[in-house]
Amino acid sequence: MLRLELTDLQDRYVAALDNDRIEEWPGFFVDDCLYEIVSKENEDAGFPAPVMHCDNIRMVRDRVVALRNANIYEKPQYRHCLSGLEWSQAEDGSIAASDQLRGGEHLGGRAPPAYTRPGATWTGSCALRRAWRFKAKRCIYDTLRVQTLLAFPI
Amino acid sequence: MLRLELTDLQDRYVAALDNDRIEEWPGFFVDDCLYEIVSKENEDAGFPAPVMHCDNIRMVRDRVVALRNANIYEKPQYRHCLSGLEWSQAEDGSIAASDQLRGGEHLGGRAPPAYTRPGATWTGSCALRRAWRFKAKRCIYDTLRVQTLLAFPI
Amino acid sequence: MLRLELTDLQDRYVAALDNDRIEEWPGFFVDDCLYEIVSKENEDAGFPAPVMHCDNIRMVRDRVVALRNANIYEKPQYRHCLSGLEWSQAEDGSIAASDQLRGGEHLGGRAPPAYTRPGATWTGSCALRRAWRFKAKRCIYDTLRVQTLLAFPI
Repeated sequence: MLRLELTDLQDRYVAALDNDRIEEWPGFFVDDCLYEIVSKENEDAGFPAPVMHCDNIRMVRDRVVALRNANIYEKPQYRHCLSGLEWSQAEDGSIAASDQLRGGEHLGGRAPPAYTRPGATWTGSCALRRAWRFKAKRCIYDTLRVQTLLAFPI
Repeated sequence: MLRLELTDLQDRYVAALDNDRIEEWPGFFVDDCLYEIVSKENEDAGFPAPVMHCDNIRMVRDRVVALRNANIYEKPQYRHCLSGLEWSQAEDGSIAASDQLRGGEHLGGRAPPAYTRPGATWTGSCALRRAWRFKAKRCIYDTLRVQTLLAFPI
Repeated sequence: MLRLELTDLQDRYVAALDNDRIEEWPGFFVDDCLYEIVSKENEDAGFPAPVMHCDNIRMVRDRVVALRNANIYEKPQYRHCLSGLEWSQAEDGSIAASDQLRGGEHLGGRAPPAYTRPGATWTGSCALRRAWRFKAKRCIYDTLRVQTLLAFPI
């Protein structure tokens, strides 16, 4: 069932981030992906400026390299808690989904629309389980401000 | 599987409330529904007085109209997080279910028993996905007090 | 599907604890079980000392008896919120799983690896639903300290 595959994708994404395996993070996205973190205030007002913006997978990979080698930051410990999965499937087979997130101490919000689509290798149930990736993941936070350094992926 | 349908119902309910689509809220209930918010202190002691009580769907709809047109309140931003779904099915096909809730900044609790039952239209898998509605939803909060105005649905 | 059975096991476990039915708690473990609560600091550094340690089901049962009859403690009210289920199955059919936990006011962490395995009685779908039990459940908390008495099971 499609719902289970999406839940599984989100669960594996969350588990990788919360257990400090950010090297796995780019693997959840397709090559021409979009990853953004934007405040709900901006989103509601139609202001497009995000606090984080990656518009292809190389920028996502660069984040990982920077976090491991270049950036200096207080290491956070997030525990993503997800609920309220909503999704719909378009005619081309891609899916728009969103859910509610309560992340670290300082972040709540939702992650819509997380367009996902099947990857290239799709052979059997095991590949199917791994096949969905994020086309666009936009994390919209509804806290009034980001209380600590937002260095780590959401 | 019944478990998935109940999870889906709760997820759609949560997503509607957390994304400020309260116009969809009455659609999750049957016409002769019960919706209550009651403190765990009262519930444990057998005191029936709730802080919110709607005993039919017209009262539920009236809440939406009041929230949109009449009430003055600080707009909350809830992020429902659900876990621990428990359910059992009675002989008449109705279901008693409960789960744990961590809601906004000020509310934790559980939502038992959320009696649900199938709606009138039940034709195919799509209708089936939409068919379950709440017969009675009682939200029992275990914080010692409600810290802010409890204007919005839980 | 195996994922659903594991989710169901965790949900029933959480529901029993959060609704103060700790008499059911030992029933989630096999006889030669391991139950531990350990800080992430210790776990990361390879220090084995846990703050709680039960290495068979009699020690687990003893906790229940102690909590009901002997111990004096401020009663907590936990609301476990789970996300990020990860699991893999070994050749002997046992499963290693972990997920993210946000528990009471003072506890976050993960519960890895929750080795589970089928119980002895496995007859039909209803028995199957009940059949998975915890072989080892290690709760690793990542808060810097335990802010209140850690009397109740996690």
